[in-house]
Amino acid sequence: MLPHQIDTLISARWVVTIDHASRVLEHHSVAVAGGKIVAILPSSEAEQRFVAKEHITLTDHALMPGLINLHTHSAMSLLRGFADDLPLMTWLQDHIWPAEKQHVGEQFVYDGTLLAAAEAIKSGVTCLNDMYFFPQPTARALLDARLRGAVSVNVIEFPTQYASDAEDYLSKGLEAHNRYGGEALLQFTMAPHAPYTISDRTFERMVTLADQLDMQIHCHIHETRAEIEGSIKEFGVRPLERLARLGMLSPRLIAVHMVHLLEDEMAQLAEHGVHIAHNPSSNMKLASGICPVSTLHDFNINVGLGTDGAASNNRLDMFTEIRAAALLAKVATENPEVVPAHRALEMATICGARALGREDDLGSIEVGKLADLTAVDLSDIVCQPCFDPTSQLAYVAGRENVTHVWVQGQCLLDNRQLTTLDEAELKQKARIWHDRIAAR
Amino acid sequence: MLPHQIDTLISARWVVTIDHASRVLEHHSVAVAGGKIVAILPSSEAEQRFVAKEHITLTDHALMPGLINLHTHSAMSLLRGFADDLPLMTWLQDHIWPAEKQHVGEQFVYDGTLLAAAEAIKSGVTCLNDMYFFPQPTARALLDARLRGAVSVNVIEFPTQYASDAEDYLSKGLEAHNRYGGEALLQFTMAPHAPYTISDRTFERMVTLADQLDMQIHCHIHETRAEIEGSIKEFGVRPLERLARLGMLSPRLIAVHMVHLLEDEMAQLAEHGVHIAHNPSSNMKLASGICPVSTLHDFNINVGLGTDGAASNNRLDMFTEIRAAALLAKVATENPEVVPAHRALEMATICGARALGREDDLGSIEVGKLADLTAVDLSDIVCQPCFDPTSQLAYVAGRENVTHVWVQGQCLLDNRQLTTLDEAELKQKARIWHDRIAAR
Repeated sequence: MLPHQIDTLISARWVVTIDHASRVLEHHSVAVAGGKIVAILPSSEAEQRFVAKEHITLTDHALMPGLINLHTHSAMSLLRGFADDLPLMTWLQDHIWPAEKQHVGEQFVYDGTLLAAAEAIKSGVTCLNDMYFFPQPTARALLDARLRGAVSVNVIEFPTQYASDAEDYLSKGLEAHNRYGGEALLQFTMAPHAPYTISDRTFERMVTLADQLDMQIHCHIHETRAEIEGSIKEFGVRPLERLARLGMLSPRLIAVHMVHLLEDEMAQLAEHGVHIAHNPSSNMKLASGICPVSTLHDFNINVGLGTDGAASNNRLDMFTEIRAAALLAKVATENPEVVPAHRALEMATICGARALGREDDLGSIEVGKLADLTAVDLSDIVCQPCFDPTSQLAYVAGRENVTHVWVQGQCLLDNRQLTTLDEAELKQKARIWHDRIAAR
Repeated sequence: MLPHQIDTLISARWVVTIDHASRVLEHHSVAVAGGKIVAILPSSEAEQRFVAKEHITLTDHALMPGLINLHTHSAMSLLRGFADDLPLMTWLQDHIWPAEKQHVGEQFVYDGTLLAAAEAIKSGVTCLNDMYFFPQPTARALLDARLRGAVSVNVIEFPTQYASDAEDYLSKGLEAHNRYGGEALLQFTMAPHAPYTISDRTFERMVTLADQLDMQIHCHIHETRAEIEGSIKEFGVRPLERLARLGMLSPRLIAVHMVHLLEDEMAQLAEHGVHIAHNPSSNMKLASGICPVSTLHDFNINVGLGTDGAASNNRLDMFTEIRAAALLAKVATENPEVVPAHRALEMATICGARALGREDDLGSIEVGKLADLTAVDLSDIVCQPCFDPTSQLAYVAGRENVTHVWVQGQCLLDNRQLTTLDEAELKQKARIWHDRIAAR
């Protein structure tokens, strides 16, 4: 048999597949052709079976599926650490919203999304689920970075620099979808901001559009107690019940935060196949509360992980979220066995893929899936000794140990160097925005 | 006036002093001579006033006091990730204690402590409060690394490879103290392991010795509910009440964990000037519970931060603990204003110094204090933009951004390179121990 011609052969010390059998393979190789994984096999065989245009040998590394950041506001990276240690509504109303009003426009969103993309790639993220204004510059930034992402058809029921009312938001979002919807790296979500900022009519409209256009729905829900109390006062029911009546609950829905949940509500989420985007750092920093991840798992509800925006985290770092998700679930339940290391890695990969409706082609290292991959060097002295690469990835390694990232077979991070983005230029842009914003 | 001759001049973009006025100085320099800070002044003046043997310019860095890890078991770095996701007593009895029984000896402790010292230095730590067996190799490892540390006169009331009974533990600990007590980089603590492993008689003995020898006392207290229930069953009172009766409560005591506390107990701790070593990651990972840091602060109780050992964390990384302490306190109280960024940095520096009885010479950048310093490069793209270096240090930067570390004026980390330790040799040792331990 003649060797088979492929694009890339990646031979790693460990391949942490996150497949159904949770296999961790030693001294295995992943063969990539046409942007897809075409084989996974022992490295000793791989070198005989394949001729690769490029062969990367990762002697001390774990190769894992690219991380999927299931909730972020990318462009807000330009507001990183702009205001901290404040209650959510003070933070939003007195700091974030006024700064956004003054500064957010096409250029802010493009530059901020590129900055977030650089951070994502350097942190091992291959796909992010964004929610923000100005989807066209968001799409352009992701495409320029060659990073996979879900761009939002975002609506908030008050006027901003971006749009004047729900109709205007929708038409601008749909225009972006028309223009960029065909891109292989992009998908679009319907993204009503939150129950306290969206009317019944708009929710219904967006559910219909999501069905027509086959989009997932991306919405903040049950983030704070104040949100729930406000809904009871205004609508007579908790937000989730209101959303249920509006037809929002389905496997299309990625419900972000879900910090405050009753047992009945969890049963309802399970019944409708709703996905959850858990943001442990943001929920902790804003003191919103603790999403009951372990109980959600008992209900077989799919829970992915997100960083939220850099204004409330302040790292767009999925390794921090993996560790935080595992640790927070343990202490919240006083049970150290919940959310073990492998489960936390699943949340950051395959669970995110499932929430985005992409379980068939993303989120694990399996033949036929897209080659979205992250390599983590476990040879750093702070990672020694290594008894179990899964434990090391979840509890020890950090984004600083990420060395390579591939999206659809294209290498975006090569030995810690960004290949699609100019780091010096991005820093310069960040400095300009800093000076402008700090001059407030 | 002739320029003054000094050893080192460090000019930094920011000097985060952690002094009483919480000053953050821009474009300032710290002058070091004889291992001490002799001046802090604007960089423009410094270069005229001083002639330094070495002048380090940190253009994009925050210079801060060296981090103080107030609770760790250094040598357990060799058991990093050896067993995860288990209840405390299962973890100890079925995994950690048997492994320790089989492997822990002089060489294990020396090698493990060196490995932990390397991780500490690379993470910006300049002083660690250790609790483990075999104080002599611990002391030797710290001295070889030139890292500051508190070595324990440790007692656990059952026989180990190290010692046979309380008397034996004590005499071995005191022998180490006799030999190494005069070293400028070392101090010793009396370290009764925990209320559930130490008899009344031994506690009393150690309190007396601590007074006679002027040592701090380092003890795990109120880590789990089981510990408290066990004490009530055996002694009729909660551990803290038993310790109070035994004379343990005083400003000498560094009470580690203190997860489960009643209001009365906090008042009692405040009254006696007890210090607390809070270990947020370890408490979360072992699901012990949440130390009520914000209430302790309301009682004016001094709370420092620790990593605990690498077997239960699994990072000896104070940046992770700083962030975790701030975030955990916020979510636990549902108040985002508690433990703001600067307070979290204080916990990791001056509060640790105070707990070790070293407030006068460690923990902040002030003239007359020892030159234990850490430089953090905030120019990384993932740290952009920077509106406030304090926020960036607490919430954004990681140990990977640490570039320089000085202990008593000696540079232990120079542009990310260890100066006193051989990284390749340490990795090799870690590999040998890994193979031995994994062969179980």
